[in-house]
Amino acid sequence: MSETSVALPRTMRASVLRGIRDVAVEERPVPGPGPDEVLVEVTAVGVCGSDVHYYEHGRIGEFVVRSPLVLGHEAGGRIVAAGSDVPAERIGQRVSVEPGVPCRRCECCRSGRYNLCPEVRFFATPPVDGAFCEYVAVPADFAHPVPDALSDDAAALLEPLSVAVWAGRKAGVGVGSHVLVAGAGPVGLLVTQVARALGAAEVVVSDVDAGRRGLAAELGASAVLDPAAGDPVEQGVEVDAFIDCSGAPAAVRAGFRAVRRAGAVVLVGMGADELPVPVSLVQNRELEVTGTFRYANTWPAAIVLAGSGAVRLDRLVTGHVDLEHAEDALAPDPRQRHVKLVVQPRAAA
Amino acid sequence: MSETSVALPRTMRASVLRGIRDVAVEERPVPGPGPDEVLVEVTAVGVCGSDVHYYEHGRIGEFVVRSPLVLGHEAGGRIVAAGSDVPAERIGQRVSVEPGVPCRRCECCRSGRYNLCPEVRFFATPPVDGAFCEYVAVPADFAHPVPDALSDDAAALLEPLSVAVWAGRKAGVGVGSHVLVAGAGPVGLLVTQVARALGAAEVVVSDVDAGRRGLAAELGASAVLDPAAGDPVEQGVEVDAFIDCSGAPAAVRAGFRAVRRAGAVVLVGMGADELPVPVSLVQNRELEVTGTFRYANTWPAAIVLAGSGAVRLDRLVTGHVDLEHAEDALAPDPRQRHVKLVVQPRAAA
Amino acid sequence: MSETSVALPRTMRASVLRGIRDVAVEERPVPGPGPDEVLVEVTAVGVCGSDVHYYEHGRIGEFVVRSPLVLGHEAGGRIVAAGSDVPAERIGQRVSVEPGVPCRRCECCRSGRYNLCPEVRFFATPPVDGAFCEYVAVPADFAHPVPDALSDDAAALLEPLSVAVWAGRKAGVGVGSHVLVAGAGPVGLLVTQVARALGAAEVVVSDVDAGRRGLAAELGASAVLDPAAGDPVEQGVEVDAFIDCSGAPAAVRAGFRAVRRAGAVVLVGMGADELPVPVSLVQNRELEVTGTFRYANTWPAAIVLAGSGAVRLDRLVTGHVDLEHAEDALAPDPRQRHVKLVVQPRAAA
Amino acid sequence: MSETSVALPRTMRASVLRGIRDVAVEERPVPGPGPDEVLVEVTAVGVCGSDVHYYEHGRIGEFVVRSPLVLGHEAGGRIVAAGSDVPAERIGQRVSVEPGVPCRRCECCRSGRYNLCPEVRFFATPPVDGAFCEYVAVPADFAHPVPDALSDDAAALLEPLSVAVWAGRKAGVGVGSHVLVAGAGPVGLLVTQVARALGAAEVVVSDVDAGRRGLAAELGASAVLDPAAGDPVEQGVEVDAFIDCSGAPAAVRAGFRAVRRAGAVVLVGMGADELPVPVSLVQNRELEVTGTFRYANTWPAAIVLAGSGAVRLDRLVTGHVDLEHAEDALAPDPRQRHVKLVVQPRAAA
Repeated sequence: MSETSVALPRTMRASVLRGIRDVAVEERPVPGPGPDEVLVEVTAVGVCGSDVHYYEHGRIGEFVVRSPLVLGHEAGGRIVAAGSDVPAERIGQRVSVEPGVPCRRCECCRSGRYNLCPEVRFFATPPVDGAFCEYVAVPADFAHPVPDALSDDAAALLEPLSVAVWAGRKAGVGVGSHVLVAGAGPVGLLVTQVARALGAAEVVVSDVDAGRRGLAAELGASAVLDPAAGDPVEQGVEVDAFIDCSGAPAAVRAGFRAVRRAGAVVLVGMGADELPVPVSLVQNRELEVTGTFRYANTWPAAIVLAGSGAVRLDRLVTGHVDLEHAEDALAPDPRQRHVKLVVQPRAAA
Repeated sequence: MSETSVALPRTMRASVLRGIRDVAVEERPVPGPGPDEVLVEVTAVGVCGSDVHYYEHGRIGEFVVRSPLVLGHEAGGRIVAAGSDVPAERIGQRVSVEPGVPCRRCECCRSGRYNLCPEVRFFATPPVDGAFCEYVAVPADFAHPVPDALSDDAAALLEPLSVAVWAGRKAGVGVGSHVLVAGAGPVGLLVTQVARALGAAEVVVSDVDAGRRGLAAELGASAVLDPAAGDPVEQGVEVDAFIDCSGAPAAVRAGFRAVRRAGAVVLVGMGADELPVPVSLVQNRELEVTGTFRYANTWPAAIVLAGSGAVRLDRLVTGHVDLEHAEDALAPDPRQRHVKLVVQPRAAA
Repeated sequence: MSETSVALPRTMRASVLRGIRDVAVEERPVPGPGPDEVLVEVTAVGVCGSDVHYYEHGRIGEFVVRSPLVLGHEAGGRIVAAGSDVPAERIGQRVSVEPGVPCRRCECCRSGRYNLCPEVRFFATPPVDGAFCEYVAVPADFAHPVPDALSDDAAALLEPLSVAVWAGRKAGVGVGSHVLVAGAGPVGLLVTQVARALGAAEVVVSDVDAGRRGLAAELGASAVLDPAAGDPVEQGVEVDAFIDCSGAPAAVRAGFRAVRRAGAVVLVGMGADELPVPVSLVQNRELEVTGTFRYANTWPAAIVLAGSGAVRLDRLVTGHVDLEHAEDALAPDPRQRHVKLVVQPRAAA
Repeated sequence: MSETSVALPRTMRASVLRGIRDVAVEERPVPGPGPDEVLVEVTAVGVCGSDVHYYEHGRIGEFVVRSPLVLGHEAGGRIVAAGSDVPAERIGQRVSVEPGVPCRRCECCRSGRYNLCPEVRFFATPPVDGAFCEYVAVPADFAHPVPDALSDDAAALLEPLSVAVWAGRKAGVGVGSHVLVAGAGPVGLLVTQVARALGAAEVVVSDVDAGRRGLAAELGASAVLDPAAGDPVEQGVEVDAFIDCSGAPAAVRAGFRAVRRAGAVVLVGMGADELPVPVSLVQNRELEVTGTFRYANTWPAAIVLAGSGAVRLDRLVTGHVDLEHAEDALAPDPRQRHVKLVVQPRAAA
């Protein structure tokens, strides 16, 4: 059914979460690409907070790991086989994998909001396996070709960059915008860079960690704040958009207060199901509040941002492990204060 | 400086709030219209919950009644004099008064969001006097001519209708929309009618009061719910937009749950400064949440809606009082369950 | 592969365009629905100007009829079989067929603009067959269930109504809008009704034919104009939106002149490839000009509009023919001045 | 009525257009700022094509120079006096003048489209005088403070930059956009830079002049084309947005053809009142076509773009003249191929 450039193995190694804090490499069949799919040899997979959460707790909200699960949804690689409906020329392309495949038929899909498709199959979300393995099969249009200028790591990290691009769009960031970002983890650092690339005049980043504040400043924050040192408003911060990447209730409350009339609040960071929100501010200032759920139609912009150097993805990577050591990336030494770890199922020789 | 059709008196009667639950008619100077203003003889003024709140508490949030205040901001009447820059032909026009006059110079004003002008002067908001009096002066462009088909009461009630039009716009209500409205007070009943006029396929209205539910049904609700009887979601309600006109925390929480992916939540009703909000729903469904603060550019649409009969304003009026009995409208007998009372400073003879 | 409620025939009658002005009924295989498709027994098919154009000229622009073609793309009917991935409960549903099936994979499809998909397969557009036949197979999500209140004819005419809904959206018609519609053919008459349903305060319709002007007035036009009697602007017309459904150069030019600053021009009617456009007006008034190409995501709104009676579809139908007389509908007696003719491949017994 | 930092002269020099190709310096009264105005000492004024057009033809369309007129509407300077309603602290500020003052009361003004105000008073548009003089009075909110980093020339050229910002917004240019700009005059060169600053992945610029093409390339064009060498489409150009800054019919026609489905066409360059437009493309691709008329709410973004260095304004300036030699700037030696000339009514000593 599929065309391949070289003989492919029938089995592959996969790092499997078998239970809470229980990960092991198993031999699994190499998936055969369907007619409209490509088979991607995975060279790099970023480790996300959600991977760590599944590893530590075996669940995220209603999503429970009930059977062995392959983690990892930030994946880059190279196409090694193509389904019958896919041009064979695609074999050999370096690609970034968009890891959520929607039904393409529901009202959400038909109206361009495919990230909200109720039937989306998303990597590393039970019961759908992820990319901590040597090969993955995805629809051809969800394997986005990347320019040579992007490293394997960067190809993988286009996924969290997509989260940031989506947040920037929802927040309406543009030339001259003033933006507050709470949380300087990987997503906050990417949102900071995206906001700058969109022309923001000011990007203030708050984080409790001095090292992360330093990295934010290096990556374009015009100012960094330690929330322990006081409320952003009391420090004179007033913005058009507040993008929360922390999930911390205190940061969210403080962020709302810093937003100008007609401004935007975008909740990216996950935390409690319910938070106290200053609704009188939402009303009196007519703030527009929303949250992000993954992303839609973001890869083209993400590729441009990373390819032009406007966003530096490689700067976030603080370590690599091979597939056999995936668990080291899921439970890293906290003293090392990693920003982004990358698993390399098929690193270049 | 101004042209008038007839000799105007130099003083007028005004109903003045002198302290908590202390209202009296006083003689006040008739305001002289400025060059770009008109003088309106006030025929009808709707009583709003905010008027009642000032009467009972002497304040709303940060707005404190520190000196005698004329209440009333839902006003209709007739132009009896025009400033030097206003065409004399306007004298005699029946008009509806838009009661918030912005600075016209700030960033909000220049970008069309004049309701958010920090320097707006709004009727009956300390220290700006309102319309419980015989004459008011307003800029000519804030005195909107109304068709003969509209009653004096309706001219006044274009103001709360504007609140509803603004809410409908923010909620993105259109042909085929499914809408949940919490609270069937005057604003909720107007939102219900506006939603229908915008083509909503379904408008579900919840209210604890059976009488108000009945009125909602009469005015176009496709279904009415008693929140005491259960959560809307449990009763099968699923909507594109939830418009809260209740300010009740339980109604707000229940409303969020009823909104579909990519749907809207618009908070119109005022209540607590802070409310618990299901942020995980806001994120997972990418709900767009906002509040309304008065309105901007709504009178033309409101006039069309009321003039065409699509919205029935007179149906909301359950009683009239003259200026001397304004207090009766501020503290009505609760057993009478009024919907909207109207003060008539200059009722037709 | 498919489930059916009753035994289906293996062949069916189809009205086939074999050459210019050469139509004949042929026996063709009944299509087998694919896994995600339904088979629709066709009860009514509206005849569109494009069908007539293919019949008379054998081509429309670059689309040339090179092999026998079944015409007809405005179709309603009843589901009689369902593919393996479709719930069997759908069998028996009365449906309206959305006749353009996109690839679901390209950038247009993924962003909700599926009508612009370069690979769309559209009924009765060479080489894709249409619905002048007893059965058609379509993807389940392109067979929209209709309420009992809609006639078979109305189910078919949801297709041209979709054209009008799309035009109304593009024109930004809303409460209080003033609209000029040029051309009172079927689409113009539907646009007129849609504009009214969207709350337009004024809908002026121009047409050279007195009978069509009369029908426009009956269906909601607030005024009708004979373009031969003068330019709309000279007759005092000034609008927020001009929707051309005529394709006539003179009407287009006159329409632009009638549009207010910041207004919209939507070109629906087809005619010359190139037209002279008053670009200085486009600039000085910052008009927003666009055209429509079919529609996307319109059936839900169309169903509400027709189901509520806001748009009267049956009023447009001026005649019916059976499949054997399809040619009579493609070349009707011009003296009869038909508005919309309907072919009934499987009329109720 | 106004506060001033130093004694101001009672008269000033002004360069006055007295007839076609007839300019002379006259002594005129220094305008007294109204209560809400500031008096600006003019340090730099860019010369625009419209100034040249009035100089050569005495009219632009319906605007006819019937009495002596001061030209110039791209002005920067320093506040030297402030009206009674303006904070005295503004005296001394370096500012850029927004040269079109709207009525602030009409529907356009109230809805944020103040550039379309029918009563706008625009510098150097008969009968309103411009800025080829030592002092101008403007409303305080139309004198935008500029950072020290901007030169006097740059303060003046924020006006044409505003034209480009407005065009970029209308065209929806964003991260990853592909843009075609026709015409590499001052506006085209600014649009090119704005498009880059907005994140465009590709900006193709066409111009018949090799020198201008070179400058476009220096300022960020990813490719430059000579329209004499062939149609952009034939050279492989396919874009999301076409922004015409040439006004040339052939460029406009070619530009439309290069735009993708759902793309935008923005007509900035002025030329014929009427142009042939490929309406079938507008329809089949659902292109969104509009024009620009000056700008609204653009100065904040323009200041950020120029202040950050993303747009290089000084690079466009190819010569300076003092007030006495304004005519040299209105009729420069064509062999010198100037891009932008600047008049300096009050150049720094």
